[in-house]
Amino acid sequence: MQSHDSVRPVRWSAEGLRLLDQRRLPDEEVERLYTDYRGVAQAIEQMVVRGAPAIGIAAAYGAVLAARDCLPRGRAAWEQALDHLNAARPTAVNLAWALRRMAAVPLVGETDPVARLLAEADVIAEEDLAANRRMGALGAELIKGPVGVLTHCNTGSLATGGFGTALGVIRQAWADGRVSTVYADETRPWLQGARLTAWELLRDGIPVTLLADSAAPLLMQQGAVQWVIVGADRVTANGDVANKIGTYGLAVAARYHGVGFMVVAPSSTVDMSLPDGQAIPIEHRNADEVLAVGGHRVAAEGAGGWNPVFDVTPAELVDVLVTERGVVHRPDAKGMAALFDRDKVRHRSGQIDQ
Amino acid sequence: MQSHDSVRPVRWSAEGLRLLDQRRLPDEEVERLYTDYRGVAQAIEQMVVRGAPAIGIAAAYGAVLAARDCLPRGRAAWEQALDHLNAARPTAVNLAWALRRMAAVPLVGETDPVARLLAEADVIAEEDLAANRRMGALGAELIKGPVGVLTHCNTGSLATGGFGTALGVIRQAWADGRVSTVYADETRPWLQGARLTAWELLRDGIPVTLLADSAAPLLMQQGAVQWVIVGADRVTANGDVANKIGTYGLAVAARYHGVGFMVVAPSSTVDMSLPDGQAIPIEHRNADEVLAVGGHRVAAEGAGGWNPVFDVTPAELVDVLVTERGVVHRPDAKGMAALFDRDKVRHRSGQIDQ
Repeated sequence: MQSHDSVRPVRWSAEGLRLLDQRRLPDEEVERLYTDYRGVAQAIEQMVVRGAPAIGIAAAYGAVLAARDCLPRGRAAWEQALDHLNAARPTAVNLAWALRRMAAVPLVGETDPVARLLAEADVIAEEDLAANRRMGALGAELIKGPVGVLTHCNTGSLATGGFGTALGVIRQAWADGRVSTVYADETRPWLQGARLTAWELLRDGIPVTLLADSAAPLLMQQGAVQWVIVGADRVTANGDVANKIGTYGLAVAARYHGVGFMVVAPSSTVDMSLPDGQAIPIEHRNADEVLAVGGHRVAAEGAGGWNPVFDVTPAELVDVLVTERGVVHRPDAKGMAALFDRDKVRHRSGQIDQ
Repeated sequence: MQSHDSVRPVRWSAEGLRLLDQRRLPDEEVERLYTDYRGVAQAIEQMVVRGAPAIGIAAAYGAVLAARDCLPRGRAAWEQALDHLNAARPTAVNLAWALRRMAAVPLVGETDPVARLLAEADVIAEEDLAANRRMGALGAELIKGPVGVLTHCNTGSLATGGFGTALGVIRQAWADGRVSTVYADETRPWLQGARLTAWELLRDGIPVTLLADSAAPLLMQQGAVQWVIVGADRVTANGDVANKIGTYGLAVAARYHGVGFMVVAPSSTVDMSLPDGQAIPIEHRNADEVLAVGGHRVAAEGAGGWNPVFDVTPAELVDVLVTERGVVHRPDAKGMAALFDRDKVRHRSGQIDQ
């Protein structure tokens, strides 16, 4: 059965870049218009747009806006603007990946370089959507259902060019009748699960049950879920996975209970330049995100807060990594290299299904 | 060094029972007066007072109020009132324990049975405080510090007759210089950690760092904590532990990281009548507690919610159980029986330190 999705968080229009303000969902659907790359950088930093692939796409369009402003003053000015965009958030590698790809577009002799760059940003967005549909099919095939599945954070249309990564797999598996119940962690402190994943799934007619993050191990103990399915902000050359805080604990609990742990991420999220997860810069955000809930201070004055936004799950806890290039079971350096080291793609090991 | 604590959530006065409304903390310190046992039952159900030992103490005073109302109509009327109190919450065994103890007070020939019952309730409260101080000393001795410790929910003065169970150990260990940093899970959905534990510790001059519940495994991965220290709502004859949702996941993660897992609970929390945790009734509360945060609905309309209030940690994940009767390392049926089966107390196994 064909699965559908209806939300697009990043849209280019004649007036500029339009971003659905994810800070306001589900209370309000507000689309904001950005005509300046600095505004796009701020929108990424302040999480108007979030989700590794969506950040990459927004940054690509930000590079188009930067080209319009800066290229008349020369390429160096534009590259400075790209650096500014790149500094907006540290952990998701898609941001740097998209900007590198924009910077690699040959512009010498181009009569309309901004149009050329816009075409490239469009391709990045379209490829992301296509990758998500492909991953949806590859991941759904792994689910022998109907079973309960658990996801964390938001990895859906809102986090990508559309359809989603982990949520794309769940979307497809639901359409195929492989999923009986979708459980979603509320995902403190930013509540992406409660605010975004629930909104997006219900909009597309998929029922969802939310739970406090800390209840997930009990769900596994009770045998209610057979797969934990999450996205990634960066996957390193050995298969380590940086993702939303809480992912690592889910992986530990999944292994303890014999529950499958699936990571779904496009190749734009894979960073073969880093040997392992130790090298991934982990963003810490303001402690107020923990000390307050929904804008209301809950903790006593004087309390400290520790607010790491991501954690790193070692590859050994990952049962399967699903990418648009194929699936890596029990990822390690060899399995990753077979899929992502171009020289070796032609000589794949038997560990990899395409 | 003597550690101190300054908060008392349950106070008897000439006018009746006074409960500090824990739903309003830390924004407001409101003490409510109860003169009717039905009001006390409702206060327990609605979590004006919470924490297994504090619930037991409040129920004991509720039994005094019930005696004042009902005993003139005969003992049967009073026992019906005790049943009503007992039904307020299902998981914490201290509630039933305190009511059984009140019912066992010999009243035949007593000239002032209400005064006799009030004296018993006072003894229950005083014994709880004494047990907590004893557990504080026993548990603190186990911490070879100074090290970081992590706690969950609120197990402090607010949850008990004073001083606290797990938080009593932390309080004492802090006073002894055995603890360098106290980390506290915010403890969704009710935010006992953010709202109550932080307030109580800061009030007594102990610094505290809050984190999202899902960040705890990363804290362990980084080596920041050497002990996870939690309370209990019920401990069964084999050492299984029912406690606030999220405790089980902490135990799984602690074992994975080689971090110590300490449960601190008075003997009033031990239920030797249940063979194991499978038999513990687990309370589920309204899904709105997950779908809303701080009274504001965050999840899209139509989302479901799963809201178990407790989980059960199997004894095999518990490194040490601290009670006022002594410490049980790696609790199992034998170790538990040695401490809690009266016939066997005189012939303790070597596994038990007093």
